[in-house]
Amino acid sequence: MAPPPLNTLKGLLDNALAEVPPGRTIWVALSGGLDSCLLLALAAALAEPAGRSLRAIHVNHGLQAAAESFEAHSRALCERLNVPLTVTKVAVKTSGKGIEGAARDARYKAFFETIPDGDALWLAQHQTDQAETFLLAALRGSGVRGLAGMPYRRQSQGVTLMRPWLFIARAELETAARVLDLSWCEDPTNSDIALDRNRLRHQVLATLRERWPAADAALASSAAHAGEADTLLTEYAEAELLTLLGENHTLGATALSERSRPRQRLLIRTFCHQHGLPTPPQKRLESVLEQLTAKPDAEVCIEWPGAQARLWRQRLYLLKPYEPLPEWAVDWNGQTALKTPLGPLGWQVAASQQSVSARSQPLRVTWRQGGEVIHLPGRGRRDVKRLLQEADVPPWERERLVVIMQADSCIGVISPPATLLWQAAGVVFTRLTSSA
Amino acid sequence: MAPPPLNTLKGLLDNALAEVPPGRTIWVALSGGLDSCLLLALAAALAEPAGRSLRAIHVNHGLQAAAESFEAHSRALCERLNVPLTVTKVAVKTSGKGIEGAARDARYKAFFETIPDGDALWLAQHQTDQAETFLLAALRGSGVRGLAGMPYRRQSQGVTLMRPWLFIARAELETAARVLDLSWCEDPTNSDIALDRNRLRHQVLATLRERWPAADAALASSAAHAGEADTLLTEYAEAELLTLLGENHTLGATALSERSRPRQRLLIRTFCHQHGLPTPPQKRLESVLEQLTAKPDAEVCIEWPGAQARLWRQRLYLLKPYEPLPEWAVDWNGQTALKTPLGPLGWQVAASQQSVSARSQPLRVTWRQGGEVIHLPGRGRRDVKRLLQEADVPPWERERLVVIMQADSCIGVISPPATLLWQAAGVVFTRLTSSA
Repeated sequence: MAPPPLNTLKGLLDNALAEVPPGRTIWVALSGGLDSCLLLALAAALAEPAGRSLRAIHVNHGLQAAAESFEAHSRALCERLNVPLTVTKVAVKTSGKGIEGAARDARYKAFFETIPDGDALWLAQHQTDQAETFLLAALRGSGVRGLAGMPYRRQSQGVTLMRPWLFIARAELETAARVLDLSWCEDPTNSDIALDRNRLRHQVLATLRERWPAADAALASSAAHAGEADTLLTEYAEAELLTLLGENHTLGATALSERSRPRQRLLIRTFCHQHGLPTPPQKRLESVLEQLTAKPDAEVCIEWPGAQARLWRQRLYLLKPYEPLPEWAVDWNGQTALKTPLGPLGWQVAASQQSVSARSQPLRVTWRQGGEVIHLPGRGRRDVKRLLQEADVPPWERERLVVIMQADSCIGVISPPATLLWQAAGVVFTRLTSSA
Repeated sequence: MAPPPLNTLKGLLDNALAEVPPGRTIWVALSGGLDSCLLLALAAALAEPAGRSLRAIHVNHGLQAAAESFEAHSRALCERLNVPLTVTKVAVKTSGKGIEGAARDARYKAFFETIPDGDALWLAQHQTDQAETFLLAALRGSGVRGLAGMPYRRQSQGVTLMRPWLFIARAELETAARVLDLSWCEDPTNSDIALDRNRLRHQVLATLRERWPAADAALASSAAHAGEADTLLTEYAEAELLTLLGENHTLGATALSERSRPRQRLLIRTFCHQHGLPTPPQKRLESVLEQLTAKPDAEVCIEWPGAQARLWRQRLYLLKPYEPLPEWAVDWNGQTALKTPLGPLGWQVAASQQSVSARSQPLRVTWRQGGEVIHLPGRGRRDVKRLLQEADVPPWERERLVVIMQADSCIGVISPPATLLWQAAGVVFTRLTSSA
């Protein structure tokens, strides 16, 4: 019988295996170090008798002289275990995040580019890694989402990432590797304390363990609690957001302003996550909240990288920043499918409309310039500006409309892609089907 | 003009002062160390011109030889500043929590015994203390409530505790104390690394600061985020508990069982906090949750120190453990106010009731023994046991009822304190007013 740690480790892989749907391949992220070599060896021992498809992926960062020996070791191990291996070479660009963060980003990018949708990726990260991640997050002053560290399981870009050994101390993995007489590469940068994680590992966690032998488990447990708190807060906030949501994915500013500050912050962060927007830095977020009770006619815009918040008529708009509009104006026969820089126009002038073609004046399509007048059926001549105000179109969207002009007359106003706002009397626009 | 740190520190005290209602005294917890001496000195400089009442309280733990010099230093400082001082000597019992925890408990007990309701207590704890508290909590594997560390402000036992300098690094306090040429006692145990907090301070935080100079601020920021998450979760959980609450402060087990595990845990912990019950240790909590879907007729009881969970008829009861009942039975004239071991009986036999006294049989009052039969008006002779089942009285409460017997007849069933369940035909119980 295998000694207890080995059985525990195998049991955890068994559980993880049960979570991967039949027919899907399990990929093991293989660095060539102890943890991932052991993961691949035990996974191979389970997968073959279970008739499951197993592959390994090795990312060569090319950052150190040792990179080639890591790759060679990974190749040798996969050959010995008879596991197909994909090797990807990546170029790591250091920018802002530091070398560790940049290498991590490049690695995950390679994973997602290589692994087909629906497959699973197993990562060998363990309790000690998690404890370090927790401390690094705390040293950045992170909130519960950061303190939560790495999740046991998460879906991303179609791939299910799993960390079957997230609750196992590194020392147990080392014991098991020695029992199996496994060979692995020692990362020479592991002892480089210029790297944050290594400094934490060798100088801080080592000291902590002298007095708190269960430090890894304790810190990982706090990380798990933080993760649970984060999940719960997201659930509650998503339910509460439903009560605040109005047209066009806006939030009622008055209702929001009646919440406590902590709740306002949570709701806005959750909304941004839901809509794929970066969350505002703390000071920007406070500015947004200060403005919630701005006068209804004030036009407030607060920007941060990748997103902006606008307040208008007591609604909060959280948006991607608009790209500046290019110069654009084209002639149009009223029939062909027209593409605007903001997407397809999506409409044509109905073929039966003699009134348009009869005048034999060409149509000109361009951005709204201001000053347009449209003759509406039964309502007479109207300023488009006035119509936009009446229709509650936010000011920053009014510049992004397309007008169809015939000489000096506006015969249609369209918000790309494909939203017809107004058409002139005697003109009928018909929707272009996507096949048109 | 005072140098910037001093102004910052004074400004924070000004803000704190504004939060104390006029007429209420501010007490400063004075240990004789740097932080609290500085707090008292700056508070005294603000309080007098503002016409506010200021006092100091010093707790002498008697734990070390230096205790007397701390007390003497506190006395001398208060005399110099002309601030009235209360000195309390406490006996510290070490049990389980270790000497630091026991001293803390004794200190707070002394605070609450000394300080009148409605007054404020200012504590000199700062960002560095908070960073240490956060790390100590993480080394116990705490959840967000523990990671939150010390609150800036909290109400407890009628006293408002405030920490005006919670976001100020200790180094700034030291600078300010030197500018003021203040004297203070150095705690000789500060260098005793047998104490958890000191080991953390000297061996861990000192190392962290070499690489992460803003470590204190970062850890304190994570603590603040955790505190905000905890507050929000409590708010959401309290709102959700209202939807689950039924009679007698019970929770619907079926509805609860349909929630996710993390949410079940949160709801039960929040319920316990609301009702002053200790929260269940993790394994007990899991047992409770496992039992939520127990058969309706199962009697489930799970206990932990200071509380118990019972499941009965698909409702969850979270309760203080019952003290065992003493032997108890008394004769009664039906008139005098009777005290049971569970509180006042609260009822008397109406004076007009000749039927009771006429039989001239004495009344005997005791715990329900089982087998009692009561003659109910219009319903005939009934087993009390059957009545209790029909009335949905939980089994564990059925033994804690008082029966009033006249010979072999039960003439009344009362649940102390003062809830009359049944009275026999021909008998009328009337409520005793509390003045009776």
